[in-house]
Amino acid sequence: MAFYVQKYGGTSVGSVERIGAVADKIKSFRDEGHDVVVVVSAMSGETNRLLGLASEITDQPSPRELDVLVSTGEQVTIALLAMALHERGCDAKSYTGDQIKILTDSAYTKARIREIGVDAIQEDIKKGRVVVVAGFQGVDESGNTTTLGRGGSDTSAVAIAAALKADECQIYTDVDGVYTTDPRVVEKARRLEQITFEEMLEMASLGSKVLQIRSVEFAGKYQVPLRVLSSFVDGPGTLITFEGDQKMEQPVISGIAFNRDEAKLTLVGVPDIPGAASRILGPVSAANIEVDMIVQNVAEDNTTDFTFTVHRNDYQRVVQVLESVAEDLGAQAVRGDNAIAKVSIVGVGMRSHAGVASKMFDALAAENINILMISTSEIKVSVVLEEKYLELAVRALHTAFELDIQSE
Amino acid sequence: MAFYVQKYGGTSVGSVERIGAVADKIKSFRDEGHDVVVVVSAMSGETNRLLGLASEITDQPSPRELDVLVSTGEQVTIALLAMALHERGCDAKSYTGDQIKILTDSAYTKARIREIGVDAIQEDIKKGRVVVVAGFQGVDESGNTTTLGRGGSDTSAVAIAAALKADECQIYTDVDGVYTTDPRVVEKARRLEQITFEEMLEMASLGSKVLQIRSVEFAGKYQVPLRVLSSFVDGPGTLITFEGDQKMEQPVISGIAFNRDEAKLTLVGVPDIPGAASRILGPVSAANIEVDMIVQNVAEDNTTDFTFTVHRNDYQRVVQVLESVAEDLGAQAVRGDNAIAKVSIVGVGMRSHAGVASKMFDALAAENINILMISTSEIKVSVVLEEKYLELAVRALHTAFELDIQSE
Repeated sequence: MAFYVQKYGGTSVGSVERIGAVADKIKSFRDEGHDVVVVVSAMSGETNRLLGLASEITDQPSPRELDVLVSTGEQVTIALLAMALHERGCDAKSYTGDQIKILTDSAYTKARIREIGVDAIQEDIKKGRVVVVAGFQGVDESGNTTTLGRGGSDTSAVAIAAALKADECQIYTDVDGVYTTDPRVVEKARRLEQITFEEMLEMASLGSKVLQIRSVEFAGKYQVPLRVLSSFVDGPGTLITFEGDQKMEQPVISGIAFNRDEAKLTLVGVPDIPGAASRILGPVSAANIEVDMIVQNVAEDNTTDFTFTVHRNDYQRVVQVLESVAEDLGAQAVRGDNAIAKVSIVGVGMRSHAGVASKMFDALAAENINILMISTSEIKVSVVLEEKYLELAVRALHTAFELDIQSE
Repeated sequence: MAFYVQKYGGTSVGSVERIGAVADKIKSFRDEGHDVVVVVSAMSGETNRLLGLASEITDQPSPRELDVLVSTGEQVTIALLAMALHERGCDAKSYTGDQIKILTDSAYTKARIREIGVDAIQEDIKKGRVVVVAGFQGVDESGNTTTLGRGGSDTSAVAIAAALKADECQIYTDVDGVYTTDPRVVEKARRLEQITFEEMLEMASLGSKVLQIRSVEFAGKYQVPLRVLSSFVDGPGTLITFEGDQKMEQPVISGIAFNRDEAKLTLVGVPDIPGAASRILGPVSAANIEVDMIVQNVAEDNTTDFTFTVHRNDYQRVVQVLESVAEDLGAQAVRGDNAIAKVSIVGVGMRSHAGVASKMFDALAAENINILMISTSEIKVSVVLEEKYLELAVRALHTAFELDIQSE
């Protein structure tokens, strides 16, 4: 007899048949005596269809009207899922973000949740109903419809689980858990029984797309036990835990994340004067380009090479920005490389284990892989390398840190 | 400088291009200095697409969830139209039924409007905005989404026009006004400059599909000047007036309505005892079959032939019901005919003109058309005849009552 908040994403409710399968799954939880609140996304493809209509009308849709438009996607799903539950003899009631009241700020298309109304849900739960809530959407203080940004349904689910003090927030998706790395790259990648919030945050920020990063932050902040499971295959999934909850000694490294969508820029021969960094990054940020890793080394001649990485989509724009910055600062040249990738090892275990970074560098050197940049944090080490070495590097590290299946 | 509430139906907003054309039209009204509130339907086909999804899930969808589902159709349109107005430099803001507050009762799928919130609209109008409202939908006192039933967007528009005391409620549709009869049947059918509410009500109830009958009742009750116009062709349309507003002497007959979807049933030789009629119609009504015309004549032998008409779709079911009624009552036989049609002449002018009915019967007799049933009201005379004579009868009456174009 537990109380679950379950979230089903777009693929899980992508057709009438799949909505039926989700209803079957929910009914089996009810039959076991559990209370269930369900948060759903739009049927896969629907949000893009709606955005397509808007883009046929205008290049610059009003964010307020965009939210009115796309929030219909989840509204369709809640009605259909509630009907499918009724059809199975399962009492259920749907709610939009406005009806629950998922109160947000007024930042259309990327609103942040302020408060969740719990009264209606608690009353329905008491009556034995499954409550079906539209994810991704909310309402601001003036009654305007807002959305939380793409993938926001995960955040809706976690926020509702936090507000209702659910026993577990279960995120049903098209993968059966969090893996040590991408199984498409490393055949021996292993599903993790559990992973800490901090590790999950690093994995998510490094390109592992299982959970939206904001939902993980939210769950960590409000101490909501979070589990990632498959909608299509039964199994325990991966539980995201707090560090104190670890049942056994954790391996040093939990997983290997990577990201291909990177580009590297270097401003060569920047005069080493105070404020140079901000004169470089100021214009980049003003152009709305996000910077990831930053490395700077002062050379003997009192000039410095300033290197950073950006999303590959921003590569052309950032080169343009840097060319005028170089002139302004009297730097010698702008160099860029958009055939790079980032590989990171992640694990809370490295806090207490020295030598993790050097073990990583050794493993890469053994494969003759040159490291272009290095950046470290308390629970991860990231390196930038030539993109062509990406798969080789991930496999080498997966083996070196004993993550392969047969090593269990 | 007038204040218009304009309603654009599903065909008028059936594609992104047509939404653009509607935005152009609204902008031209704004440029002329008029204030405009726009009520829109779902893009044509959308409501059926949504109902199709529901029907794939269940044969008996919960009415509450059906309303949550189909109300998304209008929500998509308001967002797209507001964007199209912005794109044309026209300030605009969209509202769902919930946001305006279009307060209704809780009769899902066929709710009735109780009250319209006017504050937000009036504030926006003051700011020079076009207000775009989702038709067909409302919200009940508990915050549940409701819909007004098919065609309910007309009713939304009229109710908003009444609440805001608009100068005119303009219903834009795919025809350019109300005609003396269906132009597909009578080539010489003429658009009416004006028609009274009572006549419009009769025309609507007799099968002329230009306006939803509830919206006409509503406009009559709240004295809202109503005009039917084409979204696609410029023109003055047809103004629906109050009897006192008539500018000129009205013709005796304003139009000829007809309806093919009828079937006729006769219970022959019913003993003429008190309560026979209710013992016949009671079971029919209990089977949820609506009865239209009713005729009864007592014969010499103290039995009576009881005849009535129903929608043709109910024909088989009503025959079954009547067979058991006949046995129960000791009637001689059940006779039915589902190849009949109803033709009606409508006009407030007939109140003051004797002989309208006989002129009608003469015109039909001149064409050798046999009249099977007759029913009259203050402003209409309806006859039932064999379906094969329908077109001939309508044309003959159109000419007899001087409605043809050349007679102007």
